[in-house]
Amino acid sequence: MEVKTEMKSDIEIAQQAVMKPIIHIAEKMGLTDEDIELYGKYKAKISSQTLIELKKNKSGKLILVTAINPTPAGEGKSTVTVGLGDALNKLQKRAVIAMREPSLGPTMGIKGGAAGGGNAQVLPMEDINLHFTGDLHAITTANNALAALVDNHIHQGNECRIDQRRIVWKRAVDLNDRALRKVVIGLGGPLQGVPREDGFDITVASEIMAVLCLAADISDLKKRLSQMVVAYNIDREPVTVGDLKVEGALTLLLKDAIKPNLVQTIEHSPAIIHGGPFANIAHGCNSVIATTTAAKLGDYVVTEAGFGADLGAEKFLNIKSRNKEINPEIVVIVATIRALKMHGGVSKQELSVENTEALKSGFANLQKHVESINEFGLPFVVAINKFVTDTDAEIDVLKQLCEQAQIPVALTEVWEKGGDGGIELAQKVLAILEKKKHNFEHIYSLDASIEEKIHIIATKIYGAKSVEYSSKAKKQIADFEKYGWANLPVCMAKTQYSLSDDPALIGRPEGFSITIREFKPSIGAGFLVALTGDVMTMPGLPKKPAALNMDVDENGKAVGLF
Amino acid sequence: MEVKTEMKSDIEIAQQAVMKPIIHIAEKMGLTDEDIELYGKYKAKISSQTLIELKKNKSGKLILVTAINPTPAGEGKSTVTVGLGDALNKLQKRAVIAMREPSLGPTMGIKGGAAGGGNAQVLPMEDINLHFTGDLHAITTANNALAALVDNHIHQGNECRIDQRRIVWKRAVDLNDRALRKVVIGLGGPLQGVPREDGFDITVASEIMAVLCLAADISDLKKRLSQMVVAYNIDREPVTVGDLKVEGALTLLLKDAIKPNLVQTIEHSPAIIHGGPFANIAHGCNSVIATTTAAKLGDYVVTEAGFGADLGAEKFLNIKSRNKEINPEIVVIVATIRALKMHGGVSKQELSVENTEALKSGFANLQKHVESINEFGLPFVVAINKFVTDTDAEIDVLKQLCEQAQIPVALTEVWEKGGDGGIELAQKVLAILEKKKHNFEHIYSLDASIEEKIHIIATKIYGAKSVEYSSKAKKQIADFEKYGWANLPVCMAKTQYSLSDDPALIGRPEGFSITIREFKPSIGAGFLVALTGDVMTMPGLPKKPAALNMDVDENGKAVGLF
Repeated sequence: MEVKTEMKSDIEIAQQAVMKPIIHIAEKMGLTDEDIELYGKYKAKISSQTLIELKKNKSGKLILVTAINPTPAGEGKSTVTVGLGDALNKLQKRAVIAMREPSLGPTMGIKGGAAGGGNAQVLPMEDINLHFTGDLHAITTANNALAALVDNHIHQGNECRIDQRRIVWKRAVDLNDRALRKVVIGLGGPLQGVPREDGFDITVASEIMAVLCLAADISDLKKRLSQMVVAYNIDREPVTVGDLKVEGALTLLLKDAIKPNLVQTIEHSPAIIHGGPFANIAHGCNSVIATTTAAKLGDYVVTEAGFGADLGAEKFLNIKSRNKEINPEIVVIVATIRALKMHGGVSKQELSVENTEALKSGFANLQKHVESINEFGLPFVVAINKFVTDTDAEIDVLKQLCEQAQIPVALTEVWEKGGDGGIELAQKVLAILEKKKHNFEHIYSLDASIEEKIHIIATKIYGAKSVEYSSKAKKQIADFEKYGWANLPVCMAKTQYSLSDDPALIGRPEGFSITIREFKPSIGAGFLVALTGDVMTMPGLPKKPAALNMDVDENGKAVGLF
Repeated sequence: MEVKTEMKSDIEIAQQAVMKPIIHIAEKMGLTDEDIELYGKYKAKISSQTLIELKKNKSGKLILVTAINPTPAGEGKSTVTVGLGDALNKLQKRAVIAMREPSLGPTMGIKGGAAGGGNAQVLPMEDINLHFTGDLHAITTANNALAALVDNHIHQGNECRIDQRRIVWKRAVDLNDRALRKVVIGLGGPLQGVPREDGFDITVASEIMAVLCLAADISDLKKRLSQMVVAYNIDREPVTVGDLKVEGALTLLLKDAIKPNLVQTIEHSPAIIHGGPFANIAHGCNSVIATTTAAKLGDYVVTEAGFGADLGAEKFLNIKSRNKEINPEIVVIVATIRALKMHGGVSKQELSVENTEALKSGFANLQKHVESINEFGLPFVVAINKFVTDTDAEIDVLKQLCEQAQIPVALTEVWEKGGDGGIELAQKVLAILEKKKHNFEHIYSLDASIEEKIHIIATKIYGAKSVEYSSKAKKQIADFEKYGWANLPVCMAKTQYSLSDDPALIGRPEGFSITIREFKPSIGAGFLVALTGDVMTMPGLPKKPAALNMDVDENGKAVGLF
């Protein structure tokens, strides 16, 4: 092992990797150049016609990768997802990776990419982390076109009798911009429209992102867009995109964004990267189209859901998997020694010091997520994502803790070794898939009341004692029952840092209560977003944004991007 | 002539046209697949390395297409640009077209594309009119990333001592959205940043659009971005992007957007479409990189500048042509019988009725633009862009008026006949280019004072009697002299509908005064924007936006887009 390898940054490793033309990756999966639309030599969209033709194929087995609650120490869920896909392909299994596409908000804000790391990355990582094939920009544009059309509708006579105090459609930017959280628009007199309160969400929290990710095809996309509620009229009835007659225009703006994107890993495994809702403020999974397409093209699909199993995995299993084609057969739970030590109370500065006691204490966080996956009746493997600072003693302790709790566990070294570092994990996954028939079920029925659904998630998944509702939230529940929305699943918006709604409560907190501040109905997406604690749908930039380190050299090559 | 041809919409004609793979178009110009980056089969960007290699080629002759003042009747400047390019290629001249890329603002707002019309269109017109290769989205993102970084800088301690009352960097969306013209941001308490007045411009008015269009290469782009002024500090000194140290990040966001886009016309002429500033609120020309690249690839370049010759052409010749490689040799001035009749006082409803008297009266508008081009010492041809409603008598009258005034004129029927309809125009252009040596010069020296420059433009180009300044504008001029910006060219922001700053004054108004309301210094772009009259940098949507007619069929094909 060369020390030099460890010193390379993700972007250096990525830029030194030699990609194959994406057409070669497509051909390996049985596609031809008629099936893909190139975006440069190394990125492609899969054509709409091909998506229809693929429906007749048999579906591969779905492996869902999730994690413990994230900490500043890093877990590497994307890295393990990529590495596991590479390892399966090394074992001659036809595996396809399905991931979310990154948002520019975190890219410009916090150093750390969303395309994997080390030798387990998807390429070209600069493009994927920047504008990629423009999907997020199309969503931002559709979101803001709708907002402009709503305000124009009111300005031009307000035929739908929209109550301008009850417009719920917000504007969006794919950036971290706290100054846009709460704004007043339409100032400057009658020629500038009607003044009102408004706000911007980050694009990944836009309902259009959720709609695109949950739509089965372009007709379903249009139907869902048309059902989105933008406001309430003066009689308190919902006003939808369909009422404004602009679902066609929004669908047109998204006609290419809905096609899934094909790229490759450093080891040339195919990866479909499409859709990117955050898992704290949205449903946190790549698109249904991406996952089902990957399943039609591979015998195994390795996919991830955002943040810890309390967020992305819960929503994957209770929302995305309501689509009967999305049938996960096993879950991989990623943990790191470093992050478990932080859950055990170690500060970021002390992480490189061996500390098995903190590790034992932090293990409770992992254990809770294991229990949660058990609630869904799914088999699982814990993947220890090895960091160079981990000591042998620490790794032994974690393995023992898992074995004592009868938790299947595998050490992965994919960051350092790529697919080779994921062979043990891949073999365990394959072994369990072979012998165990899963017994997957949603943990709540759609017929349950809104409060019952939230109670089940809060107690079974978060380990909460109770749920409290603001008076606004209570009133909203009554309204939703009246509008006939009570049978929708609930999409919890909650901090990713804790099992509770308080980011400071690390480890495995107990006896806490979850507070539902308010709801955001996403009728087109088909769920009710429940906002808990202080979670915000527009992040801010840190004191020293990652943007300060970024540059381009004179040849147009990215520098300082992760 | 079949009546059916006349009845087809632009999108129907475009969708029935059979495109060649763009690689074939590139090969015809001597490029290989290594020189281009595909965006689907029919769009490509030209690689940075190729742009460097092309510099050693000889430059072709530059033909600038401009027009009379636009009216709701339509002039068809883009249509004539495309048709003239096709006609030159039919005559075995190696012609390349260089145009601006459309903004989604007008696309969603007003029916009427920016990719030519009828049989003189660039393809794929849906893509070009929607997201194209993502250049405008990259510019919007860079613009708004900078805004977020400015607000974050203040929120995080304000090291540059920015006076928050004097932030001049606005946010942007590539949409018509009047409600965003004047806003208050940062509301909601200390966690949401510092409250302040702000506003959104349409992306085509962003200084970043101008910078991208005037940059010679990626190093020049970074230098110009770094010089952009975002605010003034508490000592009233300019604060630049370079002071905030984020020019690298902005350049990174624009690293692909700066590469010119290659597409084709219906008749397979190569067209480079890149950059899209409006000519009323910005400098109105496609990018310097696009124009110079087209010149290196063709013996003739047909390019256009926005709106009438008082706006786009004036700025092309006084701003863009300060780059010594941009040397126009002839100007084509497009006029239609219908628009001249409107300038002669005919209402839109009466346009189909023959009216030679109104035509004679409206001819004054054309004559003024001819005089303006003469001021620059350039030869010219008037192109009559034929509409099916034009009568023979009207065409005869217009031809006579031109001949009496010794104005070279050609009838073009490119909308109906494509390149065949532009042969007469192409032959006149070629004949003049062959015999006449042009004597091009800018109409003002950079050493002239700011007021002198504006006086020259207003009197020589607009035909104004005088220029008036608001007290704010006067104060700004004094400041600009102090900051050392007085030697920059002036970019006039003025209504496109009139030679004056009052959109109601059609034809050839006289004795009027131009009012300079305020300036917007664009130091990165390298000009001072002078805002006249009531011109606004964010358009609004009409009562019935074009979005209401748009749709996608179940195969993902665009419907109702123009």
